[in-house]
Amino acid sequence: MKTIKRKQHSLKLKRLGVDSRNEHLVFMRRDCPVCKSEGFEALNRISVANKEREVVASLVVMDGFNGLDRHQVGLSEDATRILQAREGDSLTFSHLKTLESMSDVRRKIYGNPLDQAAYRRIVEDIVDLNLSNIQLSAFLTACAGDRLDLDEIICLTRSMIDTGQRLDWGAEAVFDKHCIGGLPGYRTTPIVVSIIAASGLRIPKTSSRAITSPAGTADMMETLTNVDLSVKQIEQIVDEEGGCLAWGGAVQLSPADDILIRVERALDIDSEGQMIASVLSKKAAAGATAVVIDIPVGPTAKVRSAKEAEELAFRMRQVGDSIDLLVEPLITDGSQPVGRGVGPALEAKDVLAVLKDKENAPADLRARAVTLAGKLLEMAKSANPGEGMNMASRLIESGEAWRKFKRICDAQGGLKTPPEAEFRREVLARETGKVVAIDNRRIARLAKLAGAPAAPSAGILLNVSVGDEIDEGGKLFELHAESEGEIAYAFEYLEENTSLIGIE
Amino acid sequence: MKTIKRKQHSLKLKRLGVDSRNEHLVFMRRDCPVCKSEGFEALNRISVANKEREVVASLVVMDGFNGLDRHQVGLSEDATRILQAREGDSLTFSHLKTLESMSDVRRKIYGNPLDQAAYRRIVEDIVDLNLSNIQLSAFLTACAGDRLDLDEIICLTRSMIDTGQRLDWGAEAVFDKHCIGGLPGYRTTPIVVSIIAASGLRIPKTSSRAITSPAGTADMMETLTNVDLSVKQIEQIVDEEGGCLAWGGAVQLSPADDILIRVERALDIDSEGQMIASVLSKKAAAGATAVVIDIPVGPTAKVRSAKEAEELAFRMRQVGDSIDLLVEPLITDGSQPVGRGVGPALEAKDVLAVLKDKENAPADLRARAVTLAGKLLEMAKSANPGEGMNMASRLIESGEAWRKFKRICDAQGGLKTPPEAEFRREVLARETGKVVAIDNRRIARLAKLAGAPAAPSAGILLNVSVGDEIDEGGKLFELHAESEGEIAYAFEYLEENTSLIGIE
Repeated sequence: MKTIKRKQHSLKLKRLGVDSRNEHLVFMRRDCPVCKSEGFEALNRISVANKEREVVASLVVMDGFNGLDRHQVGLSEDATRILQAREGDSLTFSHLKTLESMSDVRRKIYGNPLDQAAYRRIVEDIVDLNLSNIQLSAFLTACAGDRLDLDEIICLTRSMIDTGQRLDWGAEAVFDKHCIGGLPGYRTTPIVVSIIAASGLRIPKTSSRAITSPAGTADMMETLTNVDLSVKQIEQIVDEEGGCLAWGGAVQLSPADDILIRVERALDIDSEGQMIASVLSKKAAAGATAVVIDIPVGPTAKVRSAKEAEELAFRMRQVGDSIDLLVEPLITDGSQPVGRGVGPALEAKDVLAVLKDKENAPADLRARAVTLAGKLLEMAKSANPGEGMNMASRLIESGEAWRKFKRICDAQGGLKTPPEAEFRREVLARETGKVVAIDNRRIARLAKLAGAPAAPSAGILLNVSVGDEIDEGGKLFELHAESEGEIAYAFEYLEENTSLIGIE
Repeated sequence: MKTIKRKQHSLKLKRLGVDSRNEHLVFMRRDCPVCKSEGFEALNRISVANKEREVVASLVVMDGFNGLDRHQVGLSEDATRILQAREGDSLTFSHLKTLESMSDVRRKIYGNPLDQAAYRRIVEDIVDLNLSNIQLSAFLTACAGDRLDLDEIICLTRSMIDTGQRLDWGAEAVFDKHCIGGLPGYRTTPIVVSIIAASGLRIPKTSSRAITSPAGTADMMETLTNVDLSVKQIEQIVDEEGGCLAWGGAVQLSPADDILIRVERALDIDSEGQMIASVLSKKAAAGATAVVIDIPVGPTAKVRSAKEAEELAFRMRQVGDSIDLLVEPLITDGSQPVGRGVGPALEAKDVLAVLKDKENAPADLRARAVTLAGKLLEMAKSANPGEGMNMASRLIESGEAWRKFKRICDAQGGLKTPPEAEFRREVLARETGKVVAIDNRRIARLAKLAGAPAAPSAGILLNVSVGDEIDEGGKLFELHAESEGEIAYAFEYLEENTSLIGIE
């Protein structure tokens, strides 16, 4: 496109040190020559350029800010980095021309399905931070619930894979697992990875930190070892050990997803299509060729009915097929938390107990891990159909899984002992009876109020499962926290939510 | 609710002078004790409090910002004002508890209709700035297109009326007008107000500035007089003159709408339900009892088909009925711009020519104003059915409308002469033929690129209408701008959009 030279005022960059995450910000005084001549106002989307580069930023107008003079401009740190700009550099500014991707987003808002080219434009602009948080929110909302059809989910997934890094393991089969989530304490990943790697298969696992839960697998693993690995480190560790347990955010696999998740978290909404694209794009980008997906179903789990779970399983298989990823969904019981601990360190202890094959290890966690690992062993043809679970069990009992786990942790930087919470308080049953229900969502909320995952030793240590008999005054669970205040905060919530564990 | 005292760190307020409009912002250093102890991160919603008051703000994290020390915190100006806080005051911070209104928004995102109580909660939180731009964007997107049913539009309209100021004119009938927009240069309001006030009726008109167009009525009127009036001034001027032409943003009529419009502008989306609620809530809050609504229909107007216009007219009547507002929709031709000028000052000149009954006044603008005023005169029973237009015409021809306009401007602060653009350039026909179409949207875009509305004299002076014969080299229109650069910028667009005026 031919560009005609416009008379442009410039401003000098002043470093302010602002971290604005998803969205670049530009800070201008209302009385600066650029703001006045261009008619800029708060929330405007502005193209900021130096001679070589350009970024899009949202304007924050400053009235009489003594940190900037009239010829200076502030920029958020990421934008400064992309422009490779330094203090005092001259920058120029113009109104953002229309983004084609936003026309696509608008079509979606009005309920029209989008094609591959449209999703590619949108995802590319997301990765380049060309869309503001307001625009990202509109895109997510327009895709929320079941508003993406199967073709659209496939297009979105492909676009997300193509806009990030992709690990390449050559021609070999590469395995992975995923759980749809919603069950506090559900931490099978380290166990499954250890079993699969111990069996000689390849499982380069990247996990997320908590989005809305009290602990993500990465938060939990971080209490045991370093999870902040580069792509090169991942490749080296997996070459040596067959598996790894890394934080996915440190590698640029499906970076659009990381950006969208921050906005999803702010909105606290789920979008089935978005979720499928998020999960499968990460698996494909990590180089997986076969993945087992656990879909727990329960009244307070993420997926609430068997029908919903079956539809989700069907779509995940279909999307998997379209990107050459063998997807095996497993629909499981999601009626209560898994294991005893809820919170990073407390969950790590459950994981260690299973891996060490301790007698008191939580049987439900062990059974789930063995089921998933067994399915993967069958998909890999390492076990005959129906024999995967036995093989997985034997790899725990023989100590091979535990030895593999220790070797992986050593390769990642050494195995640590999870921290212990300083402040604890028991919560007792107010009546005698049988435990009939445990509310996953409110257990998660309580653990978060106690400080998890930011406080790694905080959370809940459950003493009962559904079906247990309990006497009045018997211990239901322990609250763990790193400060008195957080214990008090959690208790405040408990007093308003007495039916968190149902006893009849 | 009982609150348990938590150990809280506090920070001292440092004034930064940030204007963040819709959304309060709080600026903290990553290494400050609050950020660390509470686990806050960028985009988090935080409750900021002093002893008496509380606001909700979005966090901006600062890395090594020399404008704040580790025990200081920055707040956007509006938040500082609401807290009545001063430099050095101690403030405390906590994670925002769940907003009930966001549960409502989520239900709407998933496609469920909301009731009156839900809309009230949402609109109250919008007005209190409790929702972030991300959340506002999700709400608007969830309501976009035709996703609000009639009952919901009524609930939203009522909530918007109830959360702002409301002008009270006693038992008297009060008139108003509105145009759905999309036609550049369409500026009937000052003419209609002058006619209606001259006839002895009451028409307290508040208008908006441009949202996505090159001029709003308030932008245009501002080239002729002061439009920034308080409620008290409006009441006084209307008591004396029967009418006024004020900017609606200065009075708090339907303040939720002002907030939502900023986000809608950033997204550039329309929502029929939102638009009806926006228009009718402002009319009702201004105390109107009867309003005429012009709905221009054309391929490049906002409403593109007669069917769409009829449905919109039906819904507006229904919503009007539910809030005791008599709504009379008029479906009109929206196939091309109205008058000659597009841009604040150029449109003002057209308006003055009609009001002064000049021979060269744009006939289309006059006819439209007379039609709308005539309908209002009939609704008021000042004219018999079918005789309103004649009466409106006579009020122009007799000079009464023009004298009334001058008196209103005098009361608002005096009548000014609109500014003239320093830089002009003619755009000529490239072929001989008949003008068959003028693209409203691209004319508007071109006028904006020339600088309108921020540059009040900028815009387009049209020399042709649909149906005119033109020779190659004949003048199609003049571009007006306040800088050479803006003329060049507009020309750059013209070269890519040669079919803006269709000649066959």
